Amino acid sequence: MKLCIVGSSGHYQYVLSPVKCNRNLDLEIAGIAPGSEGENMEDLYQEVINLGYKPLIYEDYRNMFDEINPDIAVINCYFGDLAKVSKEALSRNINVFTEKPVATTLEDLESLKKAYQRSKKTFVAMLGIRYKPWFLTAHHYVEEGSIGKVRLLNAQKSYKLGRRGENYKSREVYGGTIPWVGSHGVDWIRWFSREEFVSVYASHSSKDNQDHGDLEMTALCHFVLTNEVFASLTIDYFRPANAPTHDDDQLRVVGSEGIIEVIKNKVFLIDSKIAGVREVPLEPEGSIFLDFLKEVEGRGKCLVTAEDSFRITEVCLKARQSADEAKVIYL
Amino acid sequence: MKLCIVGSSGHYQYVLSPVKCNRNLDLEIAGIAPGSEGENMEDLYQEVINLGYKPLIYEDYRNMFDEINPDIAVINCYFGDLAKVSKEALSRNINVFTEKPVATTLEDLESLKKAYQRSKKTFVAMLGIRYKPWFLTAHHYVEEGSIGKVRLLNAQKSYKLGRRGENYKSREVYGGTIPWVGSHGVDWIRWFSREEFVSVYASHSSKDNQDHGDLEMTALCHFVLTNEVFASLTIDYFRPANAPTHDDDQLRVVGSEGIIEVIKNKVFLIDSKIAGVREVPLEPEGSIFLDFLKEVEGRGKCLVTAEDSFRITEVCLKARQSADEAKVIYL
Repeated sequence: MKLCIVGSSGHYQYVLSPVKCNRNLDLEIAGIAPGSEGENMEDLYQEVINLGYKPLIYEDYRNMFDEINPDIAVINCYFGDLAKVSKEALSRNINVFTEKPVATTLEDLESLKKAYQRSKKTFVAMLGIRYKPWFLTAHHYVEEGSIGKVRLLNAQKSYKLGRRGENYKSREVYGGTIPWVGSHGVDWIRWFSREEFVSVYASHSSKDNQDHGDLEMTALCHFVLTNEVFASLTIDYFRPANAPTHDDDQLRVVGSEGIIEVIKNKVFLIDSKIAGVREVPLEPEGSIFLDFLKEVEGRGKCLVTAEDSFRITEVCLKARQSADEAKVIYL
Repeated sequence: MKLCIVGSSGHYQYVLSPVKCNRNLDLEIAGIAPGSEGENMEDLYQEVINLGYKPLIYEDYRNMFDEINPDIAVINCYFGDLAKVSKEALSRNINVFTEKPVATTLEDLESLKKAYQRSKKTFVAMLGIRYKPWFLTAHHYVEEGSIGKVRLLNAQKSYKLGRRGENYKSREVYGGTIPWVGSHGVDWIRWFSREEFVSVYASHSSKDNQDHGDLEMTALCHFVLTNEVFASLTIDYFRPANAPTHDDDQLRVVGSEGIIEVIKNKVFLIDSKIAGVREVPLEPEGSIFLDFLKEVEGRGKCLVTAEDSFRITEVCLKARQSADEAKVIYL
């Protein structure tokens, strides 16, 4: 399997980490190229070299695709350019593992979907938080029926801001905080509830963003799903520098027979079987990239599908529109 | 001070508990009467007797008001009748300590406000959770500026359902879950943020309510406040019978300089001063009834004002309307 990496502005560690731990993978990192003007590829290049690969370096990812003809494109440039690069890869029948949101405008999303449908290749967005032990574990309990029917979900994404690069400061390049940070929460809501989104009402604000241009520091989304299931998603970049971790992901799933919560990388369950709240043992971590590779190699399906990747992006972009226009958007 | 109690369907313990602990209060519980047809007053009567009072028992609270001419009416009948009883009390220049929501329709709320304005008496709704040590403590930290400017709030009310009486099963008598359970969350949001409500979008569902008629089991409210502050309020009756406590109140207040959380009767703070999350020591519990009494006796102002009591009720009723009509309501 030949792999090329486009850009260095996202979660390419989803690829490098499992490669580091599984040195017998049949995989060659054959080329790297920026996907956006101004991307610094130096750190990524050095990391790939350190893994023992000798990637060719390209200025233009299209030339790289044409000359190397890889099986896989890993795409993580500035978010406003992701869809364009994905389309170039799909049109060459290259499997795509891309940063999310997979597009930052609805127009880009539509043309990307068409390119995907024409290609019949594997297309997966980096919705990798699903594979964390606490989310895999909680999801299994819900799937097994431990909390009965899912009725209500509350998701939280909270990040430290730090100092972000210029690519976070304009809506055009960055895409917005709901698509970038919120997409994980939107994914959990859909994945855990197994319901479809009916409507969204959202708000966001750039106030107090410490000279980060358009970047929204807070966002709040209210989703109505099928079967009168509701979900809240709160997003912020106000996690203090003094906090012990970069992020504070949380999820609460309220069911007709119990409640399960993912809090600080632990899972707490109250069900109808045992009195009290109990912390449940965690499953091992998974790898979204190895799961993607499994599908590319024809050994099964990836937990995150192309349909998931497109739908989560669409819902995020419409939530952003709802926040921009202060109106309910039907999905 | 002569006091009459109307109804026994709410939090009359806000009165009896401090009376039990402060036997030297200059207070006489002089009469009790039902406020709604079918209310059982037996338990309340026995409790009042046990405290050493000899209250007169009335069938009609209006006769009680006329004959006893009390200083204070404690009103906690079925929620749909609260406003009517309050108006009868205010029109006789009796100070009112009433269950919340203070009215269950906007029409009742308007006429109640007018009765209050004519009376110039003290009027306080039982928004007593403010006086819990964890809420008083968290509020003081926010007021002292520990978290900077408030930017985002997430409130949670989760209750066990158990078996509720008939008065919870019809919208007309019960008023709805957003006004009954949610009013506390609406109060915290306004009290902590010091912002005014701009709009609400809400949803609620009666699904899986185990034969409780109209009673909504879940509700979700999305508030926009002044200064682009946003707040979520999640409400449910799905707390499992196996849970260690009846309720699971939570509040998270995200500020420009820190985050404070009220979780399971504790307060956790991350600020710019000290690394890590720290649990802060709690202040002693307060008493909303003693605070109300202070105002009635002219010794100061109650932390919960008449204006708070009316506004919180109004916001809840409009949130309920938003959920009924699935549209944004401006406040």
